[in-house]
Amino acid sequence: MLQRLILPARSRLERIRKAAPGQAPGLVVPPEDSARTALDVVGFSAESFEEDKDATLEQAFAIRTKHDFLWLDFDGLGDGELIREAGAALGIHKLTLEDIVHPHQRAKVEYFADYVYIVVRMVSFTDKLEREQLSIILGRDYVLTFQEGKPGDCLEPVRERLRRSRGGIRAHGTDYLAYALIDAVIDHYFPVLERYADQLEGLEAQVSHRPYLDVVWQLHGIRRELLQLQSAVLPQRDLVQSLIREPCSLVADDTRLHLRDVADHEGQLLDLLLSYREMAQALIEIHLNVASNRMNEVMQVLTIIGAIFMPLSFIAGVYGMNFDPVSPHNMPELRWRYGYFGTLALMGVVALVQLVLFYRKGWLGRMH
Amino acid sequence: MLQRLILPARSRLERIRKAAPGQAPGLVVPPEDSARTALDVVGFSAESFEEDKDATLEQAFAIRTKHDFLWLDFDGLGDGELIREAGAALGIHKLTLEDIVHPHQRAKVEYFADYVYIVVRMVSFTDKLEREQLSIILGRDYVLTFQEGKPGDCLEPVRERLRRSRGGIRAHGTDYLAYALIDAVIDHYFPVLERYADQLEGLEAQVSHRPYLDVVWQLHGIRRELLQLQSAVLPQRDLVQSLIREPCSLVADDTRLHLRDVADHEGQLLDLLLSYREMAQALIEIHLNVASNRMNEVMQVLTIIGAIFMPLSFIAGVYGMNFDPVSPHNMPELRWRYGYFGTLALMGVVALVQLVLFYRKGWLGRMH
Amino acid sequence: MLQRLILPARSRLERIRKAAPGQAPGLVVPPEDSARTALDVVGFSAESFEEDKDATLEQAFAIRTKHDFLWLDFDGLGDGELIREAGAALGIHKLTLEDIVHPHQRAKVEYFADYVYIVVRMVSFTDKLEREQLSIILGRDYVLTFQEGKPGDCLEPVRERLRRSRGGIRAHGTDYLAYALIDAVIDHYFPVLERYADQLEGLEAQVSHRPYLDVVWQLHGIRRELLQLQSAVLPQRDLVQSLIREPCSLVADDTRLHLRDVADHEGQLLDLLLSYREMAQALIEIHLNVASNRMNEVMQVLTIIGAIFMPLSFIAGVYGMNFDPVSPHNMPELRWRYGYFGTLALMGVVALVQLVLFYRKGWLGRMH
Amino acid sequence: MLQRLILPARSRLERIRKAAPGQAPGLVVPPEDSARTALDVVGFSAESFEEDKDATLEQAFAIRTKHDFLWLDFDGLGDGELIREAGAALGIHKLTLEDIVHPHQRAKVEYFADYVYIVVRMVSFTDKLEREQLSIILGRDYVLTFQEGKPGDCLEPVRERLRRSRGGIRAHGTDYLAYALIDAVIDHYFPVLERYADQLEGLEAQVSHRPYLDVVWQLHGIRRELLQLQSAVLPQRDLVQSLIREPCSLVADDTRLHLRDVADHEGQLLDLLLSYREMAQALIEIHLNVASNRMNEVMQVLTIIGAIFMPLSFIAGVYGMNFDPVSPHNMPELRWRYGYFGTLALMGVVALVQLVLFYRKGWLGRMH
Amino acid sequence: MLQRLILPARSRLERIRKAAPGQAPGLVVPPEDSARTALDVVGFSAESFEEDKDATLEQAFAIRTKHDFLWLDFDGLGDGELIREAGAALGIHKLTLEDIVHPHQRAKVEYFADYVYIVVRMVSFTDKLEREQLSIILGRDYVLTFQEGKPGDCLEPVRERLRRSRGGIRAHGTDYLAYALIDAVIDHYFPVLERYADQLEGLEAQVSHRPYLDVVWQLHGIRRELLQLQSAVLPQRDLVQSLIREPCSLVADDTRLHLRDVADHEGQLLDLLLSYREMAQALIEIHLNVASNRMNEVMQVLTIIGAIFMPLSFIAGVYGMNFDPVSPHNMPELRWRYGYFGTLALMGVVALVQLVLFYRKGWLGRMH
Repeated sequence: MLQRLILPARSRLERIRKAAPGQAPGLVVPPEDSARTALDVVGFSAESFEEDKDATLEQAFAIRTKHDFLWLDFDGLGDGELIREAGAALGIHKLTLEDIVHPHQRAKVEYFADYVYIVVRMVSFTDKLEREQLSIILGRDYVLTFQEGKPGDCLEPVRERLRRSRGGIRAHGTDYLAYALIDAVIDHYFPVLERYADQLEGLEAQVSHRPYLDVVWQLHGIRRELLQLQSAVLPQRDLVQSLIREPCSLVADDTRLHLRDVADHEGQLLDLLLSYREMAQALIEIHLNVASNRMNEVMQVLTIIGAIFMPLSFIAGVYGMNFDPVSPHNMPELRWRYGYFGTLALMGVVALVQLVLFYRKGWLGRMH
Repeated sequence: MLQRLILPARSRLERIRKAAPGQAPGLVVPPEDSARTALDVVGFSAESFEEDKDATLEQAFAIRTKHDFLWLDFDGLGDGELIREAGAALGIHKLTLEDIVHPHQRAKVEYFADYVYIVVRMVSFTDKLEREQLSIILGRDYVLTFQEGKPGDCLEPVRERLRRSRGGIRAHGTDYLAYALIDAVIDHYFPVLERYADQLEGLEAQVSHRPYLDVVWQLHGIRRELLQLQSAVLPQRDLVQSLIREPCSLVADDTRLHLRDVADHEGQLLDLLLSYREMAQALIEIHLNVASNRMNEVMQVLTIIGAIFMPLSFIAGVYGMNFDPVSPHNMPELRWRYGYFGTLALMGVVALVQLVLFYRKGWLGRMH
Repeated sequence: MLQRLILPARSRLERIRKAAPGQAPGLVVPPEDSARTALDVVGFSAESFEEDKDATLEQAFAIRTKHDFLWLDFDGLGDGELIREAGAALGIHKLTLEDIVHPHQRAKVEYFADYVYIVVRMVSFTDKLEREQLSIILGRDYVLTFQEGKPGDCLEPVRERLRRSRGGIRAHGTDYLAYALIDAVIDHYFPVLERYADQLEGLEAQVSHRPYLDVVWQLHGIRRELLQLQSAVLPQRDLVQSLIREPCSLVADDTRLHLRDVADHEGQLLDLLLSYREMAQALIEIHLNVASNRMNEVMQVLTIIGAIFMPLSFIAGVYGMNFDPVSPHNMPELRWRYGYFGTLALMGVVALVQLVLFYRKGWLGRMH
Repeated sequence: MLQRLILPARSRLERIRKAAPGQAPGLVVPPEDSARTALDVVGFSAESFEEDKDATLEQAFAIRTKHDFLWLDFDGLGDGELIREAGAALGIHKLTLEDIVHPHQRAKVEYFADYVYIVVRMVSFTDKLEREQLSIILGRDYVLTFQEGKPGDCLEPVRERLRRSRGGIRAHGTDYLAYALIDAVIDHYFPVLERYADQLEGLEAQVSHRPYLDVVWQLHGIRRELLQLQSAVLPQRDLVQSLIREPCSLVADDTRLHLRDVADHEGQLLDLLLSYREMAQALIEIHLNVASNRMNEVMQVLTIIGAIFMPLSFIAGVYGMNFDPVSPHNMPELRWRYGYFGTLALMGVVALVQLVLFYRKGWLGRMH
Repeated sequence: MLQRLILPARSRLERIRKAAPGQAPGLVVPPEDSARTALDVVGFSAESFEEDKDATLEQAFAIRTKHDFLWLDFDGLGDGELIREAGAALGIHKLTLEDIVHPHQRAKVEYFADYVYIVVRMVSFTDKLEREQLSIILGRDYVLTFQEGKPGDCLEPVRERLRRSRGGIRAHGTDYLAYALIDAVIDHYFPVLERYADQLEGLEAQVSHRPYLDVVWQLHGIRRELLQLQSAVLPQRDLVQSLIREPCSLVADDTRLHLRDVADHEGQLLDLLLSYREMAQALIEIHLNVASNRMNEVMQVLTIIGAIFMPLSFIAGVYGMNFDPVSPHNMPELRWRYGYFGTLALMGVVALVQLVLFYRKGWLGRMH
């Protein structure tokens, strides 16, 4: 639990460092811990479709000749050689390739003469928040995608639509495919957000029952991860806006219309993220309230017990004094016939008066 | 009470998810839990007026032929077939229809060649804050409106004005009708805000009397809903500004003048929302103050009772010691003639001195 | 006191609601509780001056024929008929008239072909903050002003200057008169601000002496009203900036130069408002500090008294035990010659040691 | 101490009010409490230099004829006649003169046909923060400066450079002189800031030693004055940026290059101001921490003493009961041979067990 | 520890002051405490490379003649003469030279006719955060760099790449070299950030174990330094953006492409800085929570011990009263056969009932 706040940011920092030493730029050398690359090839025209899992580059270009459009999906960045070759064959800039193999970029879009380079960030939630960079290169008749190779795949629904040609996706060409990919990535944020909703709901229930310190740690952790999600979504909104507005021949007008839809989804995402963060904050504040309230309650009990028994004990103490009966003025009460019962009665009256007083002040009711 | 903070945002999230899976866009399939669609048709010219409740599409187009302007109000989104047909007949884009049947959009305006698509958010308050999407399609000679079909109807006053032709609304055409609809929606925010004013007033009274934890939960809940209202109004202001400024032949200059009025109302709404949120925050802070104040008061009572009786009990304790009178130095006071009364007097003096001291320090007065 | 935070915003909300039902716009019907209208007419040229209090519209237009410029001041909005007639005679748009009779507008400026419509907000402070809308219509050769009719009149100094022709105000025409009116309104904010300065000064003195809950309520109330003042001034700054910059033939260049002066004043106002709000916030924080400090002090006293008497009472308790002297090992101290005085001495030493210890820890000094 | 927060803002407010009644603008009448005016004249060309302290206007214009450039420094604003005459002779607008004699302006620059009017704010720190308005009028061949006449003079270094012609200041003309004056004013903010650094350093040392309420008051006071400094510097940055960018023939390109330097200094100033305000805030928070920590410590001591002696006193109380030995079951312990010592031992064991327990919980260590 | 918050800002302030007195600008006189200057010369063409450590200016210009490009690295600013000479030989403006020798500038870029002047800020972390100004002058065929001469050198990797001609850096000319230098500086921020990550991780572990005041001081210190880092990076981002966008013939298009990469790194840096600051803030809040929680726990123990023993002591006190058995009504219990054991049993029952009650309320469990 303890490492929850700092560790994720640290590990991200370390990955950035490993990728950004003082070396020359443009070196397409993937980090050592990259996952091995699996190349999935999809060729399609309006009417045709062909798919080859775990193919070689030769197989890929063979498929290309048979169809209008090609989609190469590199899952895992470990095979630098393969990526360099593919890049060289399609005329991808060295800096683009370097960005691809160092998966620590912020979401962005960069326009080149022959292609558009898009970086988005996929998220998933199994045990913890998992983030993965997806690089998309949109060319005239090809789309390249590069995933970090972590488990889970947001792109499967798109592949499925291509297979079944649902929504006429095959006919719309590569820019529509790129849109569909971005859309699929954004759509995957919603179930992740739901996980946080679950967590918050769980914590909300605990806040009022068991004010353990854990709750605060977890709430801070959730707030932090929601902030990370937000900082992942914000540049993606700029990216989509840029795709909508930038005059670039690779993106058709109709696709821009669809991208407006993606922008709408991102707006909703940001609204939700904001309101969840507000709630996490509110829960932290309420938690503090609950804790201080419990303390007040405890305090009250002590006060009342103390305030009632102190005077009683004092009375008992007085009649425990050993004044010598040689003087008739020394504690004559002790020798009265009903002195004892009288004293008990006095104590009872004192206690009762106090109880009534405290009741009137509302101190006997529950405070929470 | 517990579920108040998280649940509403969750259910909204779930509705968005249901509507935005990884499927192809442009599918006009309403969510399963949509209310059944009732089509209300209004045909009008400057001089004529005709109304048909729960009509069919054929009846609607029959009415259209008889009047200059047509208003179709779809109340409930359950009948996807009907909506698709109406959309096809009037040339509405698939993406627009998809947005209409998935009522989770932010307020927005989109300009198409033949129509303007406007999304606003109606609110009402029965037991809780209820929000409903209203989609307005403004065409040359028709206006389509789509409601989610929840109970309550902000549009009735507009229909009433059409019936009675109050304010010459019939003569001004469709853009003026669209303005009147938006205006009616905005006007309905004010009574909702008044409900929150009532709640805040009630809580304000309770804050100083009964500092229960409930108050804080409720205040946080209100603050959250006011935030939601604000995030509903903010994009609507942009929408209206866009309608005022965008060069679009469907909106006449005179209508823009009236839209400036709506923009003014929205400015007032936002002012009020901001100040109510500030107040909710201030009440939360004051509540904390009140609670800590009560604790101080309780504390004080304990202190004073403790501080007064401790020395007295000590004195009693001293004279309760059993030192043997074999030595004349052992507690000779016990054998004095007025030892007992002297001791009582001593106790009285000690108590009095303390009371005076505490009074001077102002600790006997009330603190709150 | 309790209603202070919520009530003012509520009543404003209600006034807005009453004015903005779902009815048709452009109806110039004043709210029922409007004050009766008194029409003050001033006609002036560079050389001439004529004034008629509580005149009729006919008298007003008669005066108009004799002078170059006309100023009609409608004090009170109750006479809708009169306002409608005047508006019709001078060609004022219906929407403008509607805004005039519903005095809940934000400060704004609207440019029409023949006139400029300006809304500002006058403030005064008698028992409480009083706000009143002033609508100014600046035409080529006339100025109309509409006040809500509340007591107090910021415009008297301007009228006085016209009477005495101080500063050549008569020669400069209507735009200069409008400037003079706006300037007079802004100048009246300063004495109001001074009232709050007085209140804050008073509360500042009380903060350290009497930390009653009242202080916090009042500080929150003041902060809220300062916020209201700020939200009244902010749109007025935009208004003046617009008048300075907008190309509008009704406002002469020289008048714009003078308006820059008004803008300066508003800048100062906002600076002051900001710093007063900061101070109110600081006082609230200090108040909390003072309160928690008092509690610490009380706590300390309890601690010291408790810590000193508990051990002493324990010693007394020990020697109050009734061990039977049949065994010589049972409390032989009780039978020593100086047992009693020794015990008292022991108690004294214990108390002294503790006092020294606490003194060294600095717990005997005052904490605040 | 008490008046520290409110008073300065009040007196500023009052000075503004005195200067801005509902009177006609353009009246060059200095406030009554203005200091008397001393006119220092400096005439200089690239090669020549002449200086006349406390001169008359005639002497000033006599000097003007002999040199290329003239600098008139009016120290004190009491002599309205003199200022009016100088203004008339050089063609200064009435509104400019009015701004000059009412020294409550925000920093600003205003461009007129023949001159540029610049207002900056000089600061100094003797006992308290002292602010003084410096109005600079930059004409083709003259520079006028108007000071409020408070003690201290930021401009002396510039005069000294003119005397010695250091840095070729004489050759660069009036715009360079104006730059040098602004630069000198900005440079004087740094020693003032250092005073606050000193104060903060002093308070930082006290925060951990003596958590008196004074510290909080002072920290709030410092934070407030730093805020004032910031609100003085911010418009000056805009002013300098405007001088750098505005196309105005009175400012040479080379001077603009130097003004960039001033802008850099202001950037640094604002950075420092921000970080000092952050620190003051951090110290306030730490102070609260220290105070609550002390209370925790005191609390702990009470708990431990109370928790240890309560059980012990209870044991003593038990054996102080007077059960009659008629029954052998009544407190036989009292008649045991080692009953007393056994009881003392029991007490010792109880105390020891508690001490060990508390030690293990870490409650005996210091908390702060 | 105490001086941690204020001192660094003070010393920076003092260095600025020393450099910015009221003197004439353009004086290239380094501050007295500047480190001695060591001039490292690198001459290179696409094919050639020559390096001379600690050279004279003559040697430098000799090298220039033999190669296409020259890089002069001045490490230490103490030798004003040398810097002035180099500046004069290459036509550097006086103001630029002055900025160079006064190393307190904010990051900026200034475009001159023949060169671009760039100021960035290098950071390193040995014992504490160390910041050093790096001035870069980018000319057509030369690059000048000026370091303050502190230990540590970010530029060595670039020099190494030049030596080995890695990445073809020699062929790309001076603008690419300048880019490589800036890139190297930015890359050095990441290890510094990692140091703070380490510190935060360490403090995070301590927060829950040992809530000492030290932790808060350190967290505030870290937050402050992170803020400083941020205010160092922010203007550098503007600088790089300016280099990317500004039309300046000295920067080639390909280099701008590489600068986009630097901008990306800065974006990541700012993201990380923001999230680390959030975490430091969260830790401070959690720390407060931990502390108040501990206090609650301590409080609870006192309450329970007090609440249990007070009634028991009272009972013991009652039976310690000395009522005289002359009256049979006076404390007959004392003479019962099992009075003592009965009383002990009563006490046990009372204690048990309370324990059960407290257990049910959850007060016996741990609260943290």
